[in-house]
Amino acid sequence: MRVAFQGEIGAYSEEAALALFTGATVVPYPSFEGVFEALEGGAVDRAVVPIENSLHGSVHTNYDLLREHDVRITGELQLRIRHHLLARRGTTIDTVRRVLSHPQALGQCRDFLRSRVPDADVVPAYDTAGAAKQLAEGGQPGDAAIASRRAALEYGLVILAEGIESNHRNYTRFLALSREAEPIADPGALGWKTSVVYAPKENLPGALFKSLAVFALRDIDLFKIESRPLVGSVGKYLFYLDLAGSERDEPVRLALDHLRELAASVRVLGSYPRGSTVG
Amino acid sequence: MRVAFQGEIGAYSEEAALALFTGATVVPYPSFEGVFEALEGGAVDRAVVPIENSLHGSVHTNYDLLREHDVRITGELQLRIRHHLLARRGTTIDTVRRVLSHPQALGQCRDFLRSRVPDADVVPAYDTAGAAKQLAEGGQPGDAAIASRRAALEYGLVILAEGIESNHRNYTRFLALSREAEPIADPGALGWKTSVVYAPKENLPGALFKSLAVFALRDIDLFKIESRPLVGSVGKYLFYLDLAGSERDEPVRLALDHLRELAASVRVLGSYPRGSTVG
Repeated sequence: MRVAFQGEIGAYSEEAALALFTGATVVPYPSFEGVFEALEGGAVDRAVVPIENSLHGSVHTNYDLLREHDVRITGELQLRIRHHLLARRGTTIDTVRRVLSHPQALGQCRDFLRSRVPDADVVPAYDTAGAAKQLAEGGQPGDAAIASRRAALEYGLVILAEGIESNHRNYTRFLALSREAEPIADPGALGWKTSVVYAPKENLPGALFKSLAVFALRDIDLFKIESRPLVGSVGKYLFYLDLAGSERDEPVRLALDHLRELAASVRVLGSYPRGSTVG
Repeated sequence: MRVAFQGEIGAYSEEAALALFTGATVVPYPSFEGVFEALEGGAVDRAVVPIENSLHGSVHTNYDLLREHDVRITGELQLRIRHHLLARRGTTIDTVRRVLSHPQALGQCRDFLRSRVPDADVVPAYDTAGAAKQLAEGGQPGDAAIASRRAALEYGLVILAEGIESNHRNYTRFLALSREAEPIADPGALGWKTSVVYAPKENLPGALFKSLAVFALRDIDLFKIESRPLVGSVGKYLFYLDLAGSERDEPVRLALDHLRELAASVRVLGSYPRGSTVG
């Protein structure tokens, strides 16, 4: 099975792809658009993309791509993002002179860098795995990178310090995507989750409240609700909703029919087993 | 008046700070924590921070800092993020050999870079304004940076190409912060907005729906609703809410009292004039 992800080999997305699809062949793409096109066009069998991060919010661009492409969510995974300080064998933490990584990772590890390698230059890189790759392919003595454990393994680097991010509550939720819904008999202990994007009818007073009533009146729990203002369209919104249950079962099916009465558009992105947290 | 922002001189945050506080002295800080501490401690009079972006979602870290610090939201501004290709005088687009910027900006301008400067190396930088600064302070012939118009002015660079981002619906919403609520008589044509963060009581069935009822039953419009799962606490959420009206007026005051009956914690972040969109 071929699974597309965005980024370099050793990226957190690759780790999520391998956790979701054990033994799969992972295929890196430079952009999310490329990932979706590869899946839709049949170049790969599955895809894995990030959809939200506990520090940095929802990845709206991937919600947009989900709406634009004929693909289905078939699974999810919550991955803890642990940053490590990596270097080539022989480098010790006292000899580190430069630290390369994505600016976001550098920022998340600012406290560590200040206290443990205060004299090292901080050098931005295109992504975390790319920084590790750069080290492995050359780099100067005293170079280090901030990246994942997987990147260390991939590029033959050693881990000088583990879990160096200041905020340990850094999790990214990844979605598994497929061209078609998969027939899954048993979703496991956590049950089903269904993801929906909808736009309320214009000028519907209390649109959000009414649309949530279709679920509350049927005792359907919600895991996520998010409004997204459509820029350039004053007062127009999209809503992202994750709810408990499968679209194949009542009362979710009836609730979604009810939602269609109230909304200008409803797109069910998929029903899938609720995922666990790893890492 | 001294206004703190995060980033380098020439950053989009500085542009927002100057649009919100005309004629102010802007003071750059390397981190958001530093911005909040400077405001709370009295080193500056005001602060301006990003809270959500139309492509990249809510900045949860700044919501956290708002909850942890004794500061108030006193205004907001929606800034269109327009990326430009900047270079030193004498450089033309045909002679560009390297393009420096933050990876996110490089990604947002990928289509332009591919079609107009396909042979240029793409070089990550810590931030957009920092890339412009780097050019101004040295750099190689043929270097260009992707940054704001303000960065071009600040660092004496010329604009080789304007608005080079693929998705023109790239807006960031910035908040103006103060140590105290400001007495504003007239909020202007758009009226008031109030921002609230609350945690529902544990195991409250239909907690979200009930908490929204306190506003719907009083015909109070909502501009934003977002659930945020608290990592490490299964089933525990924070909700972000922006609603129409001021906490000083009924029925908002009554609705917030009603919300406190239903919630484990309610934090009103501020009531402020609804902002306009610039840029």
